[in-house]
Amino acid sequence: MYRNFKELMDHLATVTDKKTVAVAAAGDEEVLKCASEARKLGVANFVLLGNGETIRSVLQQLGEDPDQWTIEETASDKAAAERAVALASEGKADAIMKGLLPTATFLRALFNKEYGLVPPKTVVSQVTVTEYPGEDRMILITDCAINVAPEYADKVNILNNAVSLAHRMGMECPKVACLAPVEVINDKMPETVDAAALAKASQRGQIRGCVVDGPLALDNALSEEAAKVKNISGEVAGHADILLVPDLAAGNILDKSLRYFAHLSTGSAVIGARVPVIMTSRSDTAEGKLHAIALSVL
Amino acid sequence: MYRNFKELMDHLATVTDKKTVAVAAAGDEEVLKCASEARKLGVANFVLLGNGETIRSVLQQLGEDPDQWTIEETASDKAAAERAVALASEGKADAIMKGLLPTATFLRALFNKEYGLVPPKTVVSQVTVTEYPGEDRMILITDCAINVAPEYADKVNILNNAVSLAHRMGMECPKVACLAPVEVINDKMPETVDAAALAKASQRGQIRGCVVDGPLALDNALSEEAAKVKNISGEVAGHADILLVPDLAAGNILDKSLRYFAHLSTGSAVIGARVPVIMTSRSDTAEGKLHAIALSVL
Repeated sequence: MYRNFKELMDHLATVTDKKTVAVAAAGDEEVLKCASEARKLGVANFVLLGNGETIRSVLQQLGEDPDQWTIEETASDKAAAERAVALASEGKADAIMKGLLPTATFLRALFNKEYGLVPPKTVVSQVTVTEYPGEDRMILITDCAINVAPEYADKVNILNNAVSLAHRMGMECPKVACLAPVEVINDKMPETVDAAALAKASQRGQIRGCVVDGPLALDNALSEEAAKVKNISGEVAGHADILLVPDLAAGNILDKSLRYFAHLSTGSAVIGARVPVIMTSRSDTAEGKLHAIALSVL
Repeated sequence: MYRNFKELMDHLATVTDKKTVAVAAAGDEEVLKCASEARKLGVANFVLLGNGETIRSVLQQLGEDPDQWTIEETASDKAAAERAVALASEGKADAIMKGLLPTATFLRALFNKEYGLVPPKTVVSQVTVTEYPGEDRMILITDCAINVAPEYADKVNILNNAVSLAHRMGMECPKVACLAPVEVINDKMPETVDAAALAKASQRGQIRGCVVDGPLALDNALSEEAAKVKNISGEVAGHADILLVPDLAAGNILDKSLRYFAHLSTGSAVIGARVPVIMTSRSDTAEGKLHAIALSVL
């Protein structure tokens, strides 16, 4: 189990069979700086797709030798996105990464049925991973970026996606807290009903590879003391590895509060497609982007 | 303008005409410890309502002389709550505080029309105040505890309640950010539509005493740099004094992340009734409870 991103990246550096990330529209300083850093650290190899001339010139500016990189010329953003998806679908790339192109163009290629990278009825979801220095461990939070108002069935898939990442991170049976503002079931707060249903589904063996409890407020999920005050028992309260948020509004605010109020080191992954997808935002830090690549090749 | 809770409490200590807080069901160690601390610091005076014998005995345990306190015997939790509300409604108390009694009992007395403490159509809302050490200032967040799924008109009232507290805290024209996961208006995320409407209502002069902008994601509300990356201008982005959250799920998670991830010093106030209401939870820290009293007597 990795206690922080450094441990995770140190592990990846020791892997001899490096994973390959296909970057769609890679001709951008920030994107290539991140790829360069990741390759130096031995996190992953890359196939750079886009305007070859731009890519080569930016690599040179960064002090890299373009001839040491795999570069594939594509005629447009659309072509770059489709080629990245095709490489993944043919098994020639282990993850795909969005470079400098519109998110919609990238997603259209990802969900293009021709390539079959996202099987029908699949829920693709995002997971934020944060260091939790007080306890020297990592916590996963989902979904902070993609699913706006997931219903019960979507939440099962979102939860399973996060559990699969947790397993890769060495958490054998992660403890999942379904967050809500209160610990009691109240149908005026539908997230409490979903949380209760998810907890019971876990008990019934319908959700596997983890232990789920909820509804739990964030304090009870993280602090054994806070849970005790509210007379909440069980193995999840106070020790949650995965926090399932009620909806995007809550997830996005929590994700951003980790960086802007708590100054914690985070990274994110997009899971559910046949390969991990790296979609960072221009406002993410260089460190956050690097962590996203590390989580995706894990 | 207070930069932190210490400055706020230092100011209250200099006020000669101390405010009086009526405490319903005060016979509890944690409640009285907090009242004792607040009185020592010169933050407020108290009227303690409840079982006189219990109150006196707990005060003695805390090293206080019960004769130095105003204690009023009441026969039940209900009677204590009603007496606190009556004192406030008669102008004999400037704020009321929930002691050790069920929240429902306390709220029933508060909303009892007989006392008129909550005029009809009033929206009572909660505000969390947090220190923001990076910029040496304080930020208000609303509503993290009371209104579950506020609609547009409720949000106007919630916003006005927070603005009135901000004015008391010395912010002449607070900058209000209406939070959402994205900066674009998207009717699949109704909070973005409400945020846009609130921003325009502010521009039209329908909301006064503040400047409102939105939708803004938390990063753009707090960081000028993050706002620039997204090409967001205006005086609110990067400098928000008040964060209006979309709903209780988001507000509660943000509030708790301030304490459990960011370890920031916070306090809260309940505003909208004719006097401020202090409702702290048993899982709040002693410091948080003291800050709540300070904010309410301000």
